[in-house]
Amino acid sequence: MASARIVDLLRKGQVNDSYLVRGWVRTKREGKGIAFLELNDGSSLQGLQIVLPQDLDGYETLVKQITTGTSIEVSGILVESMGKGQRVEMQATAIAVFGTADPETYPLQKKRHSIEFLRTIAHLRPRTNMFGAVFRVRNACAFAIHQFFQERGFLWVHTPIVTASDCEGAGEMFGVTTLDLNKVAATGKPVDFSQDFFGKPAFLTVSGQLEAEIMATAFSNVYTFGPTFRAENSNTSRHLAEFWMIEPEMAFCDLEGDADLAEDFLKYIFNYVLATCPKDMEFFQERVNDRVMVNAQKIVEEKFERITYTEAIAILENCSKTFEYPVQWGLDLQSEHERFLAEEHFQKPVIVMDYPLGIKAFYMRVNEGTASDRQTVRAMDILAPGVGEIIGGSQREERLDVLESRIRNVGLNPEDYWWYLDLRRYGTVPHAGFGLGFERLVQFITGMGNIRDVIPFPRFPQNAEF
Amino acid sequence: MASARIVDLLRKGQVNDSYLVRGWVRTKREGKGIAFLELNDGSSLQGLQIVLPQDLDGYETLVKQITTGTSIEVSGILVESMGKGQRVEMQATAIAVFGTADPETYPLQKKRHSIEFLRTIAHLRPRTNMFGAVFRVRNACAFAIHQFFQERGFLWVHTPIVTASDCEGAGEMFGVTTLDLNKVAATGKPVDFSQDFFGKPAFLTVSGQLEAEIMATAFSNVYTFGPTFRAENSNTSRHLAEFWMIEPEMAFCDLEGDADLAEDFLKYIFNYVLATCPKDMEFFQERVNDRVMVNAQKIVEEKFERITYTEAIAILENCSKTFEYPVQWGLDLQSEHERFLAEEHFQKPVIVMDYPLGIKAFYMRVNEGTASDRQTVRAMDILAPGVGEIIGGSQREERLDVLESRIRNVGLNPEDYWWYLDLRRYGTVPHAGFGLGFERLVQFITGMGNIRDVIPFPRFPQNAEF
Repeated sequence: MASARIVDLLRKGQVNDSYLVRGWVRTKREGKGIAFLELNDGSSLQGLQIVLPQDLDGYETLVKQITTGTSIEVSGILVESMGKGQRVEMQATAIAVFGTADPETYPLQKKRHSIEFLRTIAHLRPRTNMFGAVFRVRNACAFAIHQFFQERGFLWVHTPIVTASDCEGAGEMFGVTTLDLNKVAATGKPVDFSQDFFGKPAFLTVSGQLEAEIMATAFSNVYTFGPTFRAENSNTSRHLAEFWMIEPEMAFCDLEGDADLAEDFLKYIFNYVLATCPKDMEFFQERVNDRVMVNAQKIVEEKFERITYTEAIAILENCSKTFEYPVQWGLDLQSEHERFLAEEHFQKPVIVMDYPLGIKAFYMRVNEGTASDRQTVRAMDILAPGVGEIIGGSQREERLDVLESRIRNVGLNPEDYWWYLDLRRYGTVPHAGFGLGFERLVQFITGMGNIRDVIPFPRFPQNAEF
Repeated sequence: MASARIVDLLRKGQVNDSYLVRGWVRTKREGKGIAFLELNDGSSLQGLQIVLPQDLDGYETLVKQITTGTSIEVSGILVESMGKGQRVEMQATAIAVFGTADPETYPLQKKRHSIEFLRTIAHLRPRTNMFGAVFRVRNACAFAIHQFFQERGFLWVHTPIVTASDCEGAGEMFGVTTLDLNKVAATGKPVDFSQDFFGKPAFLTVSGQLEAEIMATAFSNVYTFGPTFRAENSNTSRHLAEFWMIEPEMAFCDLEGDADLAEDFLKYIFNYVLATCPKDMEFFQERVNDRVMVNAQKIVEEKFERITYTEAIAILENCSKTFEYPVQWGLDLQSEHERFLAEEHFQKPVIVMDYPLGIKAFYMRVNEGTASDRQTVRAMDILAPGVGEIIGGSQREERLDVLESRIRNVGLNPEDYWWYLDLRRYGTVPHAGFGLGFERLVQFITGMGNIRDVIPFPRFPQNAEF
């Protein structure tokens, strides 16, 4: 008999039908001549209650052998459950044990474990309620992202992970090499990169945006979804050295269209997760962060407010709140400012547009209009209650001469950007896109406090185990 | 007016309705008092024919200004086409030019370009018919893969890209470091990896399988889809230094179940691509490789043959064909053997199972049974006509004692695999999985001869531009 997934049995298993299930025992309770197991196969937060009647073949041995973590196969009949919180349970007719888990050494016993302890056993923590819920929601987010873009005719493009291109420039990057570092050290001479795999210094990418622009100027609408890297020595709850990023890029699109897409995108993902992972979301609301559902509802139900950076500064200057960081036109918004705007002033998601040119990247389109307009660029940030900035995007500078002079003005060399400039030289088009850190999104949706707990195997300074 | 995608207009645009389209001009033909443009927006191989009547505003200027590569916006009325091979064309009522493309310098002129030349302009080649088709099919494959697994309740899991785990072992790996190599070189002393970002030597992953096993023993069914790396100095048409890989892993699954899933998986992807990219597939059949459709049909329609390695050796020994490489029980099958089995002997896809233990990895399950059975492991390779090996998989060794002794026998240290062994120590289950190189799959489906032409920005020795 083919085995059934527990999530399917709980939802729509037929009472009085026979089923086969497989999974890991989470808990065992023994009564007088009866035993109860909670069996979990990772398909849902909730396990299936298995009832072992005393006349079950091998009852005594099984009850002794089965402890938390034991893997078993159960044949049985689905019956209505008398217990609370579950529609059905299974009356076991036969049980086979695959593997036991010695209670003396198996770390995941019934008691609660600290999240810090669980981080040290990243190979076992997916078997807990919390991490089970996190990684199911993570998967739901990831697939929702693909489905959203595919439904709209966007191509998923794979931008390179290793790059020797000079144009990524800023940010602390990891080097990639096949040189034997100890041999390099022994020489005492300058490194000969012609002997390295790529013939010159190579690095791990910090963003696929520039390459996504290449693809957008051929396919109109594309998106990336891949790993990116920052070699920052940041030991915070918001930073990872390795994280996944989503970067859509749209030809024939301006900043308003970019903002429209980003708003639709967030609403779509939250709706998908709420619809497909309701029990996991309940868990986060009850056990992790009681703002989770309110924040999600604001994303799904509210029309995002749109203001300019200049308007944002005016609101912050005129409010009665005292901020730690200065509020002044030309300075970047700090987290406390962003959260005030989204959480207190508007009490819903806010899109801030048209930031000062001096605090944004060279590739963002310079506004047209008055002299003061020309001091701003077509950048936008989306600020959400409970998290602050969640998406950053911009319309890109498509005018060859303006882009060249911007590159020079920030001290870069246009020759290093020859192919990026070619996109403006040949059939240039208005285009725009945004970037979203995937783990920040999962953190936002789940309410998890530390970003290291929403990726299976986090990478941070001094840590790359597993 | 919102703009329409050309693929949608070609399929279901209403004759006599007005539309707005945007894209890049592929060709221009001038007649007497009339001009024709082929406009492409990347949504399909076929472009939309735009007819410019002489009374169009700015006709003379437009016809002069518009050349191959120019980006334009066209308002017009869809009419039945008199021309061959297209249902509809557009009578332009207004045209605006976004960006021109100087015919003197724009490399993509009407003439055919060699694929080698196009490889040197990876930022422009997506604008050609061939690479347009390749990257649309690549996207279709990628989404089909996600959809296949998601429909079956598999979670997409992100295994780490950077790893300092000792257990990946074999294969040539790229080092990842934040050390300044020139400073390292200047010291003349052994490298102090405690000063490196991760506190020890770190590498780019060659496979996510071992970590996928972690996730499968919590969620039952999972898959990876991410970049992997090989620092091999191979300048062949089948190797990339950076490529994407798909690795499903299923708990409570044996080798037969693994083979079932792999067969369903390939059929699903081919069906999806044939259904969603028919014009692109026609292009490959006609212009790239006339075996493309036959090979695809064999995947979709034939039940895959299943034989053991021992049977395969017998077939090869008893056939009349002379091979370059020796055929002998205990030696690995070479490409010529694999292709003979799939293309000549069975003339359909073949799954070869139960390979000799000596030529396979330590984590594959040792067969039970007779003494000679115990000399084989539960490995499988899927061989397809036209390409040879396309998928490799195995049931994993789930018995703690057997796995430990296998690790020792191949000269590795069980202590380095402490967490991998823990999966067998606590609630071990039979499990299995397979791996598929994504670019090999795209190469197979499209019939493209060189793997560097099925990934947007290929990485190979001495090359990491873009």
